[in-house]
Amino acid sequence: MKIGFIGFGEVASNLSKGLRDHGAEVCACVEGRSSRTRKNAEKIGVTLCSTNMEVAEISDVTLSAVVPSKAIEVAEEVSNHCKGIYVDMNNVSPETVNQALGLVKNGMVVDASLMGSVLKHGINTPVIASGPCAHEFAKLKTYGLNIDVVGTKTGQASALKMLRSTYTKGVSALLFETFSAAYKMGLDEELMKYLQKTECPGFKDAAASRIINSAYHAQRKSDEMEEVLKFLGKYMEPAMAHKTADFFRIIAEKVDLDEKPGDYRTIFQNLDVK
Amino acid sequence: MKIGFIGFGEVASNLSKGLRDHGAEVCACVEGRSSRTRKNAEKIGVTLCSTNMEVAEISDVTLSAVVPSKAIEVAEEVSNHCKGIYVDMNNVSPETVNQALGLVKNGMVVDASLMGSVLKHGINTPVIASGPCAHEFAKLKTYGLNIDVVGTKTGQASALKMLRSTYTKGVSALLFETFSAAYKMGLDEELMKYLQKTECPGFKDAAASRIINSAYHAQRKSDEMEEVLKFLGKYMEPAMAHKTADFFRIIAEKVDLDEKPGDYRTIFQNLDVK
Repeated sequence: MKIGFIGFGEVASNLSKGLRDHGAEVCACVEGRSSRTRKNAEKIGVTLCSTNMEVAEISDVTLSAVVPSKAIEVAEEVSNHCKGIYVDMNNVSPETVNQALGLVKNGMVVDASLMGSVLKHGINTPVIASGPCAHEFAKLKTYGLNIDVVGTKTGQASALKMLRSTYTKGVSALLFETFSAAYKMGLDEELMKYLQKTECPGFKDAAASRIINSAYHAQRKSDEMEEVLKFLGKYMEPAMAHKTADFFRIIAEKVDLDEKPGDYRTIFQNLDVK
Repeated sequence: MKIGFIGFGEVASNLSKGLRDHGAEVCACVEGRSSRTRKNAEKIGVTLCSTNMEVAEISDVTLSAVVPSKAIEVAEEVSNHCKGIYVDMNNVSPETVNQALGLVKNGMVVDASLMGSVLKHGINTPVIASGPCAHEFAKLKTYGLNIDVVGTKTGQASALKMLRSTYTKGVSALLFETFSAAYKMGLDEELMKYLQKTECPGFKDAAASRIINSAYHAQRKSDEMEEVLKFLGKYMEPAMAHKTADFFRIIAEKVDLDEKPGDYRTIFQNLDVK
């Protein structure tokens, strides 16, 4: 079984590692990416292709894992070249996913979404899938992927994902705002201590990690929130979600981090947090 | 040891029960309250006084646990009548707490805040205290109260509480918005299932309870968020917190529940959720 990745960011690299560990062949195209990305791919044992089209041509399952704004573009790029199943794993709205998958000529498509942090859960991250080839895609369970089929239509999986994002990204924005205020007052450690007492057992580490990731991935999260708004707007007038989107846009403009800091306070120290 | 309550809502009744179980004498004034409140107080074994002034006159420790908008008014009412320590336990800003406690003539005052849900944790709910008589107040640990002294100045405890509220009330608003959208799409149960997988072990019950309480106590929470904004506004331009305040104000206008529903869906069914 050969599994190909379009895009080679956090999602693709973490899943590749897990798939390799379970004996799958994995390929990807890292042209134009940093030497760090290339080295990482080589270390994992990923076969390198020179184009995304080549990836699609040789893979039994092609997984698209790019930034939301590229989802349609990459589907178009490989639309005539898919040998097997094409899976859109991007954090995009059902509308965008339907548009992207509609471009794939052989019609063997899947709408799939990660329902947790791939950084935290790796290959065990829950994945939900819908669409005509969802059950075919679910056979990748053999290679460690934690897939649940939630429906036969594309758009169903991404609808659930968008709802999940509404909540989890909102929580991240809330944590960032609350702790940036607490930090200014010198009360962030005390606050962490008391929230830890009544919220989740792992609250402290999860909160710190969400604050760091909010800043480090602000642009991507901002793009994702635009997809969330596009989706939610059809059902309601989003209020909290609107503010969450504003938040990530503002942070993306303010932040420029070369690498991920180990301590959330580094972010508040270096930023002119509004 | 006689402990008196000004106000007899959820906080006072839950703490009274715990204090009684630990052998304390408890008194309160329930004049003008419903017969259900009176019966509840009698059942717990609370001595009934005819006025708040009488409560303050006979108590070693008087605890104010009223809605935010009444915090100053009740402090003024009993200001000349406190035999012992006066403790402001209300969800109000440091500014409001200082104003209320400044009215108490004998100066034996404490700023105290509940750092968790009294419904969930009862007498074990973490309480933080600051102010000149905080250590005196902390002696109520003997009667089961879970008190930590966080400083010697009034305003310190309520600052931490306001920060906590910024986060927890924001989460409630987020849950309400997200699940009202999911409910409209028929996806609320699926969403609950996947969030439970990656969030807290007790996520499902906590989320349902937060949605229900958001609607049932919307007016009180709206008042509390106004205090939060008053406080945060001095340090930053609150964005998420502003939306949270708007949310509770809107829900308070829309909701009129006689009793607390057992299922969060009842709220979405009966409300014209925006």
